[in-house]
Amino acid sequence: MRIAELRATPIAVKDPPLRSAFGLHAPFALRTIVEVVTDDGVVGLGETYGGDAPQRAFEAVRPLVVGRDPYELTPLRVALEAGDRTPGRADRGAAATRSSTPARARGLPERGSEGAWAWEARTFGPTQLFGAVEVACLDAIGKSTGRRVCDLLGGAVRERIDFAAYLFFKQPREGDGWGEVLTPEAVVAEARTMRDRYGYRSLKLKGGVLEPDREADAILCLREEFGPDVPLRLDPNAAWSVETAQRIAARLAGALEYLEDPVPGIDGMSAVAATAPMPLATNMCVTAFAHLPEAIAKRAVAIVLTDHHMWGGMRATVELGRICRVFGLGVSMHSNSHLGISLAAMTHVAAAVPELTYACDTHYPWQVEDVIAGGKLAIRDGAVEVPCGPGLGVELDRDALGTLHEQYLRAGLVVRDDVAEMRKIEPDWRPHVGDW
Amino acid sequence: MRIAELRATPIAVKDPPLRSAFGLHAPFALRTIVEVVTDDGVVGLGETYGGDAPQRAFEAVRPLVVGRDPYELTPLRVALEAGDRTPGRADRGAAATRSSTPARARGLPERGSEGAWAWEARTFGPTQLFGAVEVACLDAIGKSTGRRVCDLLGGAVRERIDFAAYLFFKQPREGDGWGEVLTPEAVVAEARTMRDRYGYRSLKLKGGVLEPDREADAILCLREEFGPDVPLRLDPNAAWSVETAQRIAARLAGALEYLEDPVPGIDGMSAVAATAPMPLATNMCVTAFAHLPEAIAKRAVAIVLTDHHMWGGMRATVELGRICRVFGLGVSMHSNSHLGISLAAMTHVAAAVPELTYACDTHYPWQVEDVIAGGKLAIRDGAVEVPCGPGLGVELDRDALGTLHEQYLRAGLVVRDDVAEMRKIEPDWRPHVGDW
Repeated sequence: MRIAELRATPIAVKDPPLRSAFGLHAPFALRTIVEVVTDDGVVGLGETYGGDAPQRAFEAVRPLVVGRDPYELTPLRVALEAGDRTPGRADRGAAATRSSTPARARGLPERGSEGAWAWEARTFGPTQLFGAVEVACLDAIGKSTGRRVCDLLGGAVRERIDFAAYLFFKQPREGDGWGEVLTPEAVVAEARTMRDRYGYRSLKLKGGVLEPDREADAILCLREEFGPDVPLRLDPNAAWSVETAQRIAARLAGALEYLEDPVPGIDGMSAVAATAPMPLATNMCVTAFAHLPEAIAKRAVAIVLTDHHMWGGMRATVELGRICRVFGLGVSMHSNSHLGISLAAMTHVAAAVPELTYACDTHYPWQVEDVIAGGKLAIRDGAVEVPCGPGLGVELDRDALGTLHEQYLRAGLVVRDDVAEMRKIEPDWRPHVGDW
Repeated sequence: MRIAELRATPIAVKDPPLRSAFGLHAPFALRTIVEVVTDDGVVGLGETYGGDAPQRAFEAVRPLVVGRDPYELTPLRVALEAGDRTPGRADRGAAATRSSTPARARGLPERGSEGAWAWEARTFGPTQLFGAVEVACLDAIGKSTGRRVCDLLGGAVRERIDFAAYLFFKQPREGDGWGEVLTPEAVVAEARTMRDRYGYRSLKLKGGVLEPDREADAILCLREEFGPDVPLRLDPNAAWSVETAQRIAARLAGALEYLEDPVPGIDGMSAVAATAPMPLATNMCVTAFAHLPEAIAKRAVAIVLTDHHMWGGMRATVELGRICRVFGLGVSMHSNSHLGISLAAMTHVAAAVPELTYACDTHYPWQVEDVIAGGKLAIRDGAVEVPCGPGLGVELDRDALGTLHEQYLRAGLVVRDDVAEMRKIEPDWRPHVGDW
């Protein structure tokens, strides 16, 4: 079995005006749909970050992928990480020189108050490129052998994956059905709707939007409304100062399952962790294997949010689970705006990682469009059943793919820029980075 | 695909009178040949530690294995590690209560000067049991899908696996062709024969047998004979004191690629590592994932010798490779006396672990018998080619298996006891444990 074709189709999907410390979601979220087509006609699917940076990377990596046996994944990873310059292979410039250690992971503000916030451009290095190709190859292997992807990863330790409701502050938008959510009371109403629709048993609030004490108020309102049996999390995306984080953490003693990335950087997290009464989690100061030793040595976090898109694929996520167990860290799962292929992959990998005992994050209900056939995957009782397979267990709706690709071309967005979007409604807006 | 049958056949294979800090190899080494037979008739092979402790463990685990999909490996591991008591499943007593942290790993003398040294009985816990079943299941999966086991682990980053000559001090035995090896000069002669026959480009000397300075002399003689392009290693199996190890390490500056387990325990190794001019390696103070955090924090070792039999299988070995890379540790590979199924498995897993850049250990040439069809696997130019597969790429010679099983029954050995064997020739012999 050889890979005959690698396709990476950029798409744009409608996205509600969600707020975060980074600004405001644009009307469209960008994704890339990956297809690995084998010489015997099997199509393996993947989904990853969108925009033009991934496009360039996929273009450059094609010679390294086409002709390859889809089982030959570790050699592909090693070649990508080394910046393979074998003649006829991927161009180093596009495929390999982007840092796999994004600024955010090093605790630096990755977006200035002036500049664009370019998640995809900054994070799409060889590790992420490999991860995207790996998922599509594992899907192809699963489809060709009649097995689920989770089985290829060692087998499912659970068949239903718990997800947390992902609560956002948001701007109003005509007809989106959610209205404006910029108060604690509105967050509670949003949570109630999320629970009614999807049965979520955990709630995560994306913070870094209101003044920190107002966000703490929101958590306490959620606690009051849903009681102690509904675990709560708050994620200010590193907007707070250490002092603020320590104060708010003390205020929220007993109310949070974990506090995610209150401040930037491993040292800052370590300082907060020393006094916080709840565990700290991260998807910002530890986003690559290379960040683990320092974070562990400095006891900066108790829980790592994995993300197969970011960490370099599904096997890497299994390996991360093992590392976290060895070093006494918990494992949860991060999400970006995504569609059903990513949700299926997240579900398969979560099934295969014993250590992933926290409910996972997912933006999925915020996206009304999708590229998978048969409609969106169901979230019931707050959980997604691992698709039966083979492979990821989802198929592409080519009409939908075409429509969303057209939408990408029409939208004219090639990079995510939440700051620019926010400034359309507040021209002087600037993000907080560890200074709130 | 379901597992219809699990067979674990105890065998005894002729073994030369090799010496180590633990005593003397008995005339037979004990192994267990594992067969997983699927309901569609595929036979997956594995090989692991021998004697009656593994026998009892396989007996007890059968209900947990038979009826299982061979892809469902992580769930099996989790069940074994948790000491599964599900009715009809493995008996906790035999399968799960043995510690996966052997005394040796905690730096304790695991054999008293009086007692038997019972490697298999003490180390065959749930982790090792899982590893043995996992290899056989991966072989079955490979055979059923027409793929090599290394491909199931992520793909081969190398197609030839370098091994080091495993040099031993030894007692003479009529007709074994090696004679007595109890001097530096005899070690050089043994090394010359090993190199002539197998083309080894690295040499490892099992020490802990002669007075420490005599073993250092042996290393210097090897250096003199083969020059600086042939990496040398010395493994006294924790027989030395910290003081001796520091002194000998200084004497051997520039002569050793690494010094393996000069002293017992993480603290002892850490003290030696602080002054030794060469990296320290271990297969004794770090033999399980749980030992890594302390060893890393105390900078006890620079290189971990993995062993899929010990560490819980092939995927665990891949994960260990990742952990070692993340924390800046090198990876080599340990060996016990073994046959061709183990060598094939060692070769496949070595192919799939990018971090395994040191030549691996193998006792293979010391065993003249085998259970694989078609004769022993070839070591040429010091390397073994990854078998073509499918699966591990080796098949069972059932006549040989029967013969070696008969030999097991006749030999009357059920546990490895190098001390007792040594006392047959030196009644007052006692092992050195950190006191030489």
